[in-house]
Amino acid sequence: MTRAAAYALIMLFALVLATRIDVAGQQGVSDGARYDPDGRLLYPADYREWVYLTSGLGMTYGPAAQAAGRPPMFDNVFVNRESYRSFLATGRWPERTIFALEIRTGDENVSINNGGRTQGAIRALEVAVKDSSRFPDTTWGYFEFGAPPEIAPAAARLPATASCYACHRNHAAVEQTFVQFYPTLMDVARAKGTVRADYDPARKP
Amino acid sequence: MTRAAAYALIMLFALVLATRIDVAGQQGVSDGARYDPDGRLLYPADYREWVYLTSGLGMTYGPAAQAAGRPPMFDNVFVNRESYRSFLATGRWPERTIFALEIRTGDENVSINNGGRTQGAIRALEVAVKDSSRFPDTTWGYFEFGAPPEIAPAAARLPATASCYACHRNHAAVEQTFVQFYPTLMDVARAKGTVRADYDPARKP
Repeated sequence: MTRAAAYALIMLFALVLATRIDVAGQQGVSDGARYDPDGRLLYPADYREWVYLTSGLGMTYGPAAQAAGRPPMFDNVFVNRESYRSFLATGRWPERTIFALEIRTGDENVSINNGGRTQGAIRALEVAVKDSSRFPDTTWGYFEFGAPPEIAPAAARLPATASCYACHRNHAAVEQTFVQFYPTLMDVARAKGTVRADYDPARKP
Repeated sequence: MTRAAAYALIMLFALVLATRIDVAGQQGVSDGARYDPDGRLLYPADYREWVYLTSGLGMTYGPAAQAAGRPPMFDNVFVNRESYRSFLATGRWPERTIFALEIRTGDENVSINNGGRTQGAIRALEVAVKDSSRFPDTTWGYFEFGAPPEIAPAAARLPATASCYACHRNHAAVEQTFVQFYPTLMDVARAKGTVRADYDPARKP
């Protein structure tokens, strides 16, 4: 193969790949949000096999005093696999992207651990979905599924007045998602130019 | 189809499935550890797309006083996807199972967070591999890859005198792995009867 032919082949491959990603962005992912016939989001039973994004311990969004006296909880964030791959390529979330935020206890002194905290029982599962046709007013919908053994099989979207909507809209770095807390993705967003223009890392609620 | 024929079909399917899992246990997984021609473990570049098992913050294995004065770090644990599925079915790890232990800073006051800690830069990547043909003396091998930007492309096994070997052998609940810290897997191990007989959750090093 000549060098020119090889170059043409590479460009063709890149074009096909770019088209596929663009289609995914517009039409949505195949492993994203699913709904019941009444339009309620189905519980995403397989979220522990999605891509892990980050954890925090004892995160506090409001006045720090609110957290005082309460034991700190872990939060684990997962996103569906196709959307993760798409974000790596574009810095954007496709339609039907689904995030799970899992809250677990932060236990002390478990087994050989003598300091710090490790993860215990699940306390809550919260979900965010990008779906601009279903949620034209907010683009993203937020949902609560409770905790085992009382997990809801399906959940209606929280009302747009719930505090999560305003906080994500006002403070999240990329498309109403807190990419500033996802260490493997913030650099991708910077490289792709998808961090919101007025994002200020020092801004507090 | 008669009920008897349907039953026979289901049993046949179960048998095929059990055989496949058994073969995986003996021959190893297809997404597990890979080595260079000199037998050094290749850096598992895709570990962030494996299955997440748990995180700790500021975990301390020895005397708690050792940790005093040092900022607490997050540890994130991942395992290859086929081995995770196999463990759910059997409570055991197939040959060539590979774990990644990622150490990250625990940052304060990032963006809207006013309390607790969130994950920052990676500080180390440590790996465990089950391979009883390569490591007949210890069954598992332990490896260190450093941290970006100085990640080693391949690593030799740490000597069997390294402290990780004895600690995993003496204190880990299932097959030299710390399943007692993996909240979604400890119940599986209990149900499958694979927790070591002398496992004592109160035992300290």
